[in-house]
Amino acid sequence: MGVMRIGHISIKVMDMDAAVRHYEKVIGMKTTHKDAKGNVYLKCWDEWDKYSLVLTPSEQAGMNHVAYKVEKEADLDMLKQRIEAYGIKTEMLEAESLPFVGRMLQFALPSGHDMRLYAKKECVGTDVGSTNPDPWPDDLRGAGAHWLDHCLLMCELNPGKGINKVAENTRFFMEALDFFQTEQIVVGPGGVIQLASFLSHSSKPHDIAFVGGDRPGMHHLSFFLDSWHDILKAGDIMAKNKVRIDVSPTRHGITRGETIYFFDPSGNRNETFAGLGYQAQRDKPVITWTEDQAARGIFYHTGVLAETFTTVYT
Amino acid sequence: MGVMRIGHISIKVMDMDAAVRHYEKVIGMKTTHKDAKGNVYLKCWDEWDKYSLVLTPSEQAGMNHVAYKVEKEADLDMLKQRIEAYGIKTEMLEAESLPFVGRMLQFALPSGHDMRLYAKKECVGTDVGSTNPDPWPDDLRGAGAHWLDHCLLMCELNPGKGINKVAENTRFFMEALDFFQTEQIVVGPGGVIQLASFLSHSSKPHDIAFVGGDRPGMHHLSFFLDSWHDILKAGDIMAKNKVRIDVSPTRHGITRGETIYFFDPSGNRNETFAGLGYQAQRDKPVITWTEDQAARGIFYHTGVLAETFTTVYT
Amino acid sequence: MGVMRIGHISIKVMDMDAAVRHYEKVIGMKTTHKDAKGNVYLKCWDEWDKYSLVLTPSEQAGMNHVAYKVEKEADLDMLKQRIEAYGIKTEMLEAESLPFVGRMLQFALPSGHDMRLYAKKECVGTDVGSTNPDPWPDDLRGAGAHWLDHCLLMCELNPGKGINKVAENTRFFMEALDFFQTEQIVVGPGGVIQLASFLSHSSKPHDIAFVGGDRPGMHHLSFFLDSWHDILKAGDIMAKNKVRIDVSPTRHGITRGETIYFFDPSGNRNETFAGLGYQAQRDKPVITWTEDQAARGIFYHTGVLAETFTTVYT
Amino acid sequence: MGVMRIGHISIKVMDMDAAVRHYEKVIGMKTTHKDAKGNVYLKCWDEWDKYSLVLTPSEQAGMNHVAYKVEKEADLDMLKQRIEAYGIKTEMLEAESLPFVGRMLQFALPSGHDMRLYAKKECVGTDVGSTNPDPWPDDLRGAGAHWLDHCLLMCELNPGKGINKVAENTRFFMEALDFFQTEQIVVGPGGVIQLASFLSHSSKPHDIAFVGGDRPGMHHLSFFLDSWHDILKAGDIMAKNKVRIDVSPTRHGITRGETIYFFDPSGNRNETFAGLGYQAQRDKPVITWTEDQAARGIFYHTGVLAETFTTVYT
Repeated sequence: MGVMRIGHISIKVMDMDAAVRHYEKVIGMKTTHKDAKGNVYLKCWDEWDKYSLVLTPSEQAGMNHVAYKVEKEADLDMLKQRIEAYGIKTEMLEAESLPFVGRMLQFALPSGHDMRLYAKKECVGTDVGSTNPDPWPDDLRGAGAHWLDHCLLMCELNPGKGINKVAENTRFFMEALDFFQTEQIVVGPGGVIQLASFLSHSSKPHDIAFVGGDRPGMHHLSFFLDSWHDILKAGDIMAKNKVRIDVSPTRHGITRGETIYFFDPSGNRNETFAGLGYQAQRDKPVITWTEDQAARGIFYHTGVLAETFTTVYT
Repeated sequence: MGVMRIGHISIKVMDMDAAVRHYEKVIGMKTTHKDAKGNVYLKCWDEWDKYSLVLTPSEQAGMNHVAYKVEKEADLDMLKQRIEAYGIKTEMLEAESLPFVGRMLQFALPSGHDMRLYAKKECVGTDVGSTNPDPWPDDLRGAGAHWLDHCLLMCELNPGKGINKVAENTRFFMEALDFFQTEQIVVGPGGVIQLASFLSHSSKPHDIAFVGGDRPGMHHLSFFLDSWHDILKAGDIMAKNKVRIDVSPTRHGITRGETIYFFDPSGNRNETFAGLGYQAQRDKPVITWTEDQAARGIFYHTGVLAETFTTVYT
Repeated sequence: MGVMRIGHISIKVMDMDAAVRHYEKVIGMKTTHKDAKGNVYLKCWDEWDKYSLVLTPSEQAGMNHVAYKVEKEADLDMLKQRIEAYGIKTEMLEAESLPFVGRMLQFALPSGHDMRLYAKKECVGTDVGSTNPDPWPDDLRGAGAHWLDHCLLMCELNPGKGINKVAENTRFFMEALDFFQTEQIVVGPGGVIQLASFLSHSSKPHDIAFVGGDRPGMHHLSFFLDSWHDILKAGDIMAKNKVRIDVSPTRHGITRGETIYFFDPSGNRNETFAGLGYQAQRDKPVITWTEDQAARGIFYHTGVLAETFTTVYT
Repeated sequence: MGVMRIGHISIKVMDMDAAVRHYEKVIGMKTTHKDAKGNVYLKCWDEWDKYSLVLTPSEQAGMNHVAYKVEKEADLDMLKQRIEAYGIKTEMLEAESLPFVGRMLQFALPSGHDMRLYAKKECVGTDVGSTNPDPWPDDLRGAGAHWLDHCLLMCELNPGKGINKVAENTRFFMEALDFFQTEQIVVGPGGVIQLASFLSHSSKPHDIAFVGGDRPGMHHLSFFLDSWHDILKAGDIMAKNKVRIDVSPTRHGITRGETIYFFDPSGNRNETFAGLGYQAQRDKPVITWTEDQAARGIFYHTGVLAETFTTVYT
């Protein structure tokens, strides 16, 4: 009942051909649809719904909206009530407002990001099928990403003005959408300021994350890989394709994830993320990273955080 | 709401010292409690509740009961109603009927196994804590298992007599406990006989599994490892400790899991299981393994199933 | 000066199309030449000489000959003298007796196997080239084997009759060809019988091995992979291609190598072997496996040796 | 005959306790000897000679000398002749001029570095022994480095003055010591300037390397690990021990090695290096990296070379 997972993310790209080439050759997705407006829809091999990424032609990079899939059609009505009771206006978009998708509940997060919930998207099956499936398809491409795993949204944080959209989003996701918090970074005297927040609605360490910054934006969209070995292969694939790498292979303290950060040709930050990390559960004590160890929480090996990592985003 | 995960398994062992040595030195658990009756309680380093394994002295091997943790105390009352409405009698055991555990809802599965649900167990934290945690503890022991992941129960299957406790358990778990099925093996003409069933209540490929056999029993209890590399290390640890290995490292077709099967000194089968495999979701098409490919579903590499694998259990 | 490495192995196959498909699709080699007699020549992507495997059409499986490459043309003359001084007759085959190969020094090992030494074979370069090479080629196929690494020859061992061709071959390789022994299995009272011997002329744990049996033959030819992860991938590739697996992934005690044994369609045993293991050196103490631990030396995890592993060979 | 491998490196440290703690807890070595002058001698678990690292107390970091082991005592006399015939003066130090070591042939490389050759050092065996050895010892510590693998020496390069000690060292190692070149970086018009050179005397991609800089010095000493997974573990160990990391996990284009660079407490750069990479052989075409791809040769994933990587050394 309720939210299941990230369903898709719609992002802006400046050079569609280059973008499609990147998500196909580097990430390993397949194009499953193109519409009349020039939008391109792609999916990973291990996803069963029609698409998880929408590329829209634009003058600049960034996120249009992020959509999570809920279990049942009735969940949309139930969540509409809860979200509005929480004090956020919603709109129910009719079916096919996005191709292959049923009606979508649209609303703005406290941070201002456009979010959608939907219950139906055409199911096309994974690339290995559901009868006697191989563990991976013969035509694995690029990094061979399994699925779009999560996104990290930058939220306005201005303690001087009493603004903390990280904390506001966190409360909204927990109270209205039944997410639970797995980890947080707290800063300031007494650790009263929630700088970053990681939330799950599954048994994975995060399904969405929020980090404080000057302005709202998209920090990265993240694709799941199976293991640290696949991270090495992903790095090799990026090298072969001359991808601009932001952070070469390392481990996160937060989530324990094994990671590479890099950019698509428009400058949207991508992540390949490997390993389950740990089993997230509603009764697991929330992990807190204190200000002095926050950099190690983000990049566990070096404990050093390049300033651009938190200031450069779309 | 409802079930979260396997909470503990209580098993019988014939030589307690040898059993404790096995679960500590090979699996890597720590003893957290011993009671007056000689029962020993252990946990893995990445678990936060007091114990996940109870060893009880006995004349023979096998499972006493398996217990799943639910989210809230009220869930026990709700599930009591649902289980009884389903037609299964339950008993609410009072708190501390097992040490450190709140009240437990006890009932017999259609297959005859003793199952428990509980909402409270003393939380002692993981070995890395919840403030600026390292990804793994300094004193990692043995295979370094993260957590008890799932169990596989053998259920009576006698098509001639119309008995299929695999199918009955599956229906019960789905209808009364809100599990969803991820995979199944079907055999017989038209694939009408459900020989094996894999069920999840999380985003992992299984939280419990049932396989048909001559009599009810416990096939194995399984411990989670992070990666295929940890499977190699686990095999090395078993060799150093002269553990009796049943199936050396390989991959399952079912769940895609990387695995070793082996026995504790009393003959209870253990598994070390690595990798998330895939993201289990309620809308993911159920995977079906047909009779001709069932062996490959179980042991993907060889496609060969030793008869003892399904006939030897406790 | 002297021997560098295994250069190629020539083996017999009964169904050439099936054999080529196997070595191309499963091992990942490329066909580089076919001759008028129907022989097929293949190389791995990381080898720079024209071929390392010769398949010859035949009524039965088995090895024709194994050839090692020496550093210089003059080494052939020097080694001819040493081998004949050792008491073994040799013949210098003229250049192009095998395509693309210079003159070859041919002789029979004490065990009866046909062995060749040569200094020249056409160099075609690796698949990644020698200018700014990628670490692996874009068109990696199958298990992506790097190179033919070594072979294991079965040698007659009949202690009752005083026959031990393992020991005889070992002495010959050390005294005449400057190999050094890295490991041995000794059996019998006082460990006086050398059952198996592993020899190197490089810094890898073995370049050739001998094991005692009823009759001379070829136990396996082995292909190098980089890591345990590549062993998993190789196992998956074998499953996809329905290859007959003899021993699924495990570790050798001897050489520490990570391994899978399997058969080509004619029944010639192959191995994929991963990891350097250790640095073999002439001053490293020789490792000895005693009779009671020999099975663990061969299959470290289980310590169990199926009888067929030493009785079934070509 | 001739050189076998790097035998030990003697380096200067400013805080001996901190240095020993680093090489023991992070690298995983064991102290095997301390002498009256306060020098400390250590070995890795997989090495059989008494030590491979000598730490000497000093006011500044850097290398005292590097020593390679030759096969036979007579090789020292033969090499003395060849080195002097090459035009380099040598001195034969008497046995025990370094503890547990036989006589040493000392000379200055063209680059000015102090180099030694020796044939004898007390053999103490690896930590797993040579009878039925486990693949790794039970008391593995820190990153569990197998052995000191190679060192990289900085050599004066000043094309304006016609000085290229990289090229001079390369020629000396090839002509006098029988090393062969595996890879090189060439820069300048027509690629006439050899900026870096990688040389082997084994089947590993390098046993020593030279890179051009302003002044002679030691760039790093490198320890061997088995696999990319061990690189992750090494990074985790460094994080736990707050080691200063220079370059977090990545792959070299050159040698294909998987790597982390970091500093010991005195500022001597260390490397943990994993994987065989490829089989180095005397007939393998030399790999050349051109100026435009040199950064990718060094750090394959990003293709970006921080200036400090080539300017900061001891």
